Amino acid sequence: MESIRIFSPATVANLSCGFDVLGLCLDTIGDEMIIRKSDKKGIRIIKITGADLPLEIDKNVAGVAALALVNAYETDFGFEIEIRKKIKAGSGIGSSAASAAGAVFGINKLLGEPFSGHELIQYAMKGEALASGNEHADNVAPALLGGFTLVRGYDPLDVIKIKSPEELYVTVLHPHIELKTSEMRAILNPEIKLKNAIRQWGNVGGLVAGLYTSDYDLIGRSLTDYIVEPLRSKFIPGFDQAKKTAIENGALGAGISGSGPSIFTLNKGLKNATSVNDQLKEIYQKNNIPFETYISKVNPDGIRIIE
Amino acid sequence: MESIRIFSPATVANLSCGFDVLGLCLDTIGDEMIIRKSDKKGIRIIKITGADLPLEIDKNVAGVAALALVNAYETDFGFEIEIRKKIKAGSGIGSSAASAAGAVFGINKLLGEPFSGHELIQYAMKGEALASGNEHADNVAPALLGGFTLVRGYDPLDVIKIKSPEELYVTVLHPHIELKTSEMRAILNPEIKLKNAIRQWGNVGGLVAGLYTSDYDLIGRSLTDYIVEPLRSKFIPGFDQAKKTAIENGALGAGISGSGPSIFTLNKGLKNATSVNDQLKEIYQKNNIPFETYISKVNPDGIRIIE
Repeated sequence: MESIRIFSPATVANLSCGFDVLGLCLDTIGDEMIIRKSDKKGIRIIKITGADLPLEIDKNVAGVAALALVNAYETDFGFEIEIRKKIKAGSGIGSSAASAAGAVFGINKLLGEPFSGHELIQYAMKGEALASGNEHADNVAPALLGGFTLVRGYDPLDVIKIKSPEELYVTVLHPHIELKTSEMRAILNPEIKLKNAIRQWGNVGGLVAGLYTSDYDLIGRSLTDYIVEPLRSKFIPGFDQAKKTAIENGALGAGISGSGPSIFTLNKGLKNATSVNDQLKEIYQKNNIPFETYISKVNPDGIRIIE
Repeated sequence: MESIRIFSPATVANLSCGFDVLGLCLDTIGDEMIIRKSDKKGIRIIKITGADLPLEIDKNVAGVAALALVNAYETDFGFEIEIRKKIKAGSGIGSSAASAAGAVFGINKLLGEPFSGHELIQYAMKGEALASGNEHADNVAPALLGGFTLVRGYDPLDVIKIKSPEELYVTVLHPHIELKTSEMRAILNPEIKLKNAIRQWGNVGGLVAGLYTSDYDLIGRSLTDYIVEPLRSKFIPGFDQAKKTAIENGALGAGISGSGPSIFTLNKGLKNATSVNDQLKEIYQKNNIPFETYISKVNPDGIRIIE
């Protein structure tokens, strides 16, 4: 194989109770990337469309991730990367993760897959470090493995793919406001109440149990965040109304996607997801806040090759 | 049915990462209780052997729990309770929970089971409130439901029974030292580091995933407690050595049972559990600390009727 064209999906991290550990993979929104073998060693980003991003390897998340991988695996050739960004930077649905994960996924394929999906996570995380200042895996893991993923721990990196029920649909509403990931992290308290932490890990356990047993109600009851959402949601206009409306209209739960500003909902079935999505659109239309929305099944496989 | 004789098992709460939410049911150690219908309305505790505990209803955890149940269900008759305590008070393996859960289980059977196991939890919790000052469910839930249980939340009470793999064996070592539950709670910090909370809920998610998928290694990797064990383990002589020895000898993990002083280990298979138990016994014999040990499969059913 000399070149590969892939779809690298958006992802929703945190999922209310699972701050910094849980994430899921979307299916209807993602970047396209073309990766080619090249006689010239090293990594080159030759073209980026859809976003104003640097082509310099060390300033581009895809470049940094790709370089980390090829530094760990000797080759006689190099790679050219072309990125067609569809995921908006700063939307909170894993734009940088899609680029970083896509780069290492594509190169690994062209190398004959010396690395497993789990092993690729650590290289993709190098891209995340460039984007946000810390090597987090909660977006790159679901992009690479698909489905729901749990980052059990980082020392050593331990990521678990969690089985999820068939009929789970996600809606994402991206209000066009700017939130900086670094600022959204700075507003968090480094100390939290033990009482709230206990409620939070009760919900993480409940969500994982609900996913394994296809208990949609339990999934919904577990989608509560006592720690982060109360602090961050204030910065997202319309969040409270959107969440309330989503749940009143049958969503299992709703919360902030990643560090925002996107709002996600989980739903049983496409019909419910569509109706929830319609209600949320109406709120943001009325409030005159520009936005996009996406409806997606949970993508069980993650990044895929396209023809 | 006019009378019933039951086995009300000991339980291990917290399970390292799941402070205040997780618990499991043991099979080889538990109290015996006999509960009889009586023409005289109300609850009477007629005999307690094996422990010096009050017969007065409002001072006895079984009495308080039983009373909460009969107050919620009109009958023309009453109940007499006889308790043969085998679980030592203050051992950290749910002695009060066994009495409280056994009382409501037995009465419910004699009433023709108007309440589900899940519904009985709330009545048994009234007994726990008498014993420890707060209505916690992490011991009464596994005693009533069997297996592993997760208390997802209290408002409203939401307890989930978690599937667990066949070959999971528990060892418990009860060193004969006195720790007061109230003091063990007082030494906890009401505030914890967000960083540690994230690692803890990563492990709760990992443990629940490991139980559903029979992934013994994952269960073991998840049995880590960053919050409570570092503070409480200092009060249990030999704890660090015991934990290290258990893991070196193949235990999946080890930690404090409930608020201690008992130490539990989880193991794959009886053979491994027995070998770990032997090693731990040796440590406490050498240190001249009196103790008891128990080896038990996880009890999948909880309290049971005996002939």
